[in-house]
Amino acid sequence: MKSRQFTVETGGRPVVVDLTAEAAAFVAGEGDGLLSVFVPHATAGVAIVETGWGSDRDLIDHLATLFPRDERWTHRHGSPGHGADHVIPAFIAPSTTIPVVAGELALGTWQSIVLVDPNDDNRNRTVRFSFVSG
Amino acid sequence: MKSRQFTVETGGRPVVVDLTAEAAAFVAGEGDGLLSVFVPHATAGVAIVETGWGSDRDLIDHLATLFPRDERWTHRHGSPGHGADHVIPAFIAPSTTIPVVAGELALGTWQSIVLVDPNDDNRNRTVRFSFVSG
Amino acid sequence: MKSRQFTVETGGRPVVVDLTAEAAAFVAGEGDGLLSVFVPHATAGVAIVETGWGSDRDLIDHLATLFPRDERWTHRHGSPGHGADHVIPAFIAPSTTIPVVAGELALGTWQSIVLVDPNDDNRNRTVRFSFVSG
Repeated sequence: MKSRQFTVETGGRPVVVDLTAEAAAFVAGEGDGLLSVFVPHATAGVAIVETGWGSDRDLIDHLATLFPRDERWTHRHGSPGHGADHVIPAFIAPSTTIPVVAGELALGTWQSIVLVDPNDDNRNRTVRFSFVSG
Repeated sequence: MKSRQFTVETGGRPVVVDLTAEAAAFVAGEGDGLLSVFVPHATAGVAIVETGWGSDRDLIDHLATLFPRDERWTHRHGSPGHGADHVIPAFIAPSTTIPVVAGELALGTWQSIVLVDPNDDNRNRTVRFSFVSG
Repeated sequence: MKSRQFTVETGGRPVVVDLTAEAAAFVAGEGDGLLSVFVPHATAGVAIVETGWGSDRDLIDHLATLFPRDERWTHRHGSPGHGADHVIPAFIAPSTTIPVVAGELALGTWQSIVLVDPNDDNRNRTVRFSFVSG
C-alpha cells in the first residue's frame, strides 16, 4: 500500500483546508482503488464539501452553533470551550475514503476533500493518504 | 476494481432513498471485500439506518431542525436556505464502506444503505458503487 | 479478507466503549492495508475520539442535547425517545476505516476507536473487524 503523511499549516483559528490537489497528485497514475484520507488527531476531521462559495465559512460557523464553546464540557484542557473540539470528530470523522478510477479521484464537480480543524490550539496538522489498489 | 455509476430519481423534496437492494445485487458473487458507496454531489450524503418505521422521516425532519433553512448561511445560491444543504455533507458524508463476506453485505437485520438528499433543487442523483476484493 | 465478529457488553445506559486494543490485536502482523470497523446495528455507531479526559461523557451528554429524547420522533418503538437512537447513526456512522502500516493502526496519540451506543434497550452489541491488504 502506498501511504504518505504530510503536514498542513492550519494557524491559530478554526479553518477548512482544501486537500484535493494533493490527493489528486497522490493517486495520479495509480489505476483503480480506494483512497483513504486520515488525520491522526483527536480534534480535527475530514469532510467532502464544496468550497469557494462560502460553505467552508458556514461550516465553521455552524460548528460553533451546534457545539458551543461554553462551560458545558467535562474535558477542560486547552483554551475555553476546547472540550467541544473533542466531540466534533465523532460527527466529522477523521477518516474517509474516495473511489479512484484510472488514477483519478471520482469526485463530483463541486466536491473538495477538506481538513476541518475547529481547534485554535494546534497550528500544524498531519494528514495521511493511503491508496489500496482494487 | 469493479465500479459502476447509476442515477437515482430523488424528486423535488428532501428524501431518503434506499439503495440496499442495488448494493446487494452489485456485490453478489464477488467474494470477500469492501463495498464503497459514494455520491459525487456536494449536497447529498450516504447513511446506514433503519427504514420503514418512520426513522427516514425523522432524519429529514431533524436535519431541518439542526440545519435551519434560514438566512444564516453565507452560501446564497439556489432556493432559500440552500446553504444548509452544503453544510450537511460534512456531517452525513457522501462516502461509506460496508464489509462484504462471501458476496453478501455484512449489514445488520435493521440496517439499510440510503442516499440522503436534503436538497430540493436536484431531481436526479448519481451513486457510485465500487468493490475492492480483500 | 480476514474478518471477525465479536460481542461487546454495553449494559443498560448510553456508553462509549473503547475498541482500540482489540483492533490493534486484530491487525498485528498483517502488514499494510485498511481496517474496516463496522457495527451491524441500526442504533449504534463507530467513532475515533479521545477517551479518558471526559470527552466520552461529553459525547454522550451532547447526543442527548442534539437529539432530545422527547415526543418529536415518528419512530415509537422501545423506551421513550428511542426514535432519537435511530437518527444518530446517520451522523455517527456505524462504519469507519483506519489505515494500517506494518501491522499497526496509524492512529494519532490521542485517538481511540470507540463504539458509540446511545441506546438503553440493547445490552450487547456486535462489532465486525475486516482487514483488506493494500
